Amino acid sequence: MNREKHISSAFDRDLETIEALAVKMGGMVEAAITDAATALETRDEELAEQVLRRDRSIDDLEQRLNDEAARLIALRAPTATDLRMVLAVMKISHSLERVGDYAKNMAKRTSVLSQMPPIDGAGLALRRMSNVVGKMMQDALDSYIRRDAGLAQDVRQRDLEVDQMYNALFREFLTHMMEDPRNITACMHLHFIAKNIERMGDLATAIAEQVIYLVSGDLPDDSRPKANSVPMADTDAAAGG
Amino acid sequence: MNREKHISSAFDRDLETIEALAVKMGGMVEAAITDAATALETRDEELAEQVLRRDRSIDDLEQRLNDEAARLIALRAPTATDLRMVLAVMKISHSLERVGDYAKNMAKRTSVLSQMPPIDGAGLALRRMSNVVGKMMQDALDSYIRRDAGLAQDVRQRDLEVDQMYNALFREFLTHMMEDPRNITACMHLHFIAKNIERMGDLATAIAEQVIYLVSGDLPDDSRPKANSVPMADTDAAAGG
Repeated sequence: MNREKHISSAFDRDLETIEALAVKMGGMVEAAITDAATALETRDEELAEQVLRRDRSIDDLEQRLNDEAARLIALRAPTATDLRMVLAVMKISHSLERVGDYAKNMAKRTSVLSQMPPIDGAGLALRRMSNVVGKMMQDALDSYIRRDAGLAQDVRQRDLEVDQMYNALFREFLTHMMEDPRNITACMHLHFIAKNIERMGDLATAIAEQVIYLVSGDLPDDSRPKANSVPMADTDAAAGG
Repeated sequence: MNREKHISSAFDRDLETIEALAVKMGGMVEAAITDAATALETRDEELAEQVLRRDRSIDDLEQRLNDEAARLIALRAPTATDLRMVLAVMKISHSLERVGDYAKNMAKRTSVLSQMPPIDGAGLALRRMSNVVGKMMQDALDSYIRRDAGLAQDVRQRDLEVDQMYNALFREFLTHMMEDPRNITACMHLHFIAKNIERMGDLATAIAEQVIYLVSGDLPDDSRPKANSVPMADTDAAAGG
């Protein structure tokens, strides 16, 4: 499935155009994650507002990528292998769009949370988690562009760390809520944000698994490490795939 | 975009095969929603276990649908219009798979919740919400098969009802948590379930919007009613699309 295997063709050039759109989307989504987390931590409602506004451009970019991909398929009638590439980049862009939605949701909650008493350490912990996920996202996209199954495997492994961060936060929020009922509403929102960041990690993992499938022809088996051992912790299914 | 517009061709027959897979998936997903909600309400861990097991078949069906669709595209080199149909049914099946994941997650939480003191009325409210969403799902899929934009519009409208049910539950869970800290853990799980059901509604709406796009060539404008007026309530973005 190496790019070198066939001579550069009109199809390849068109595909590269589409991939460039995906890379652009990836950059915007990564910025959205980082900015949303910073806005939350520093209670910067202006920055949160920017994240909300910019989500529209991410959605538009996905639409454009889909249109271009459909045009490519109709025009070039790609072989089964080439078609798989096009469908993969469409799926990847859809995952990116969903990550953008989660970042937007984080930004939306910032203005609500700014009205409430702060929860010790939550902003910092969530930003750290966002950083890990942002990097996973970037590497997953990189692994696609370079058809690098090794890097994709590495992204998959890192999802365990995100799951563990999420589980730790879940317990922490429970403690805050039990200690003081005035923390309950804020913790409900913070918990949602943590869960959404964890889902972003799942989506980055789904992209990485897509890359492994493209390169090797096999979807990874179920051996992906999931931190689900804590019975009281949240047990969400990987929403990706 | 009416099926009658072009003479039945090899493409049409192949597409119908793929659509039949989507309908089968839809039936399984609907059963998963209903059974997961019943299991939760009646604390039937055996039924919840069945939902978990059956999710694998839903995932397999999506994989098969994707393979068939890719084969169809590669084999028949469909026109732009026909291609749009194939891509739409792939998107729809992916939405169905995600709804299946949410149902699975509801089932997973059942065994955790069965160990905790019950929250008054929560099981009933969540089952009612699940029923509305299950019907939306069924109608969205029906609207696709019949290319019925009117029915698709109707599904879109009903999402408002789901959003309102969710907002009401969100407030109710907050009250339970503030009244008695021993309710906090159970309410966190119940809240997640409510949110996931609301997301299933968003996904049914995304399918309906796909149908409107197929039939009319336009994505609906942003006039979809969203029940986001309650400032303290949850403000999640429609994760679909």
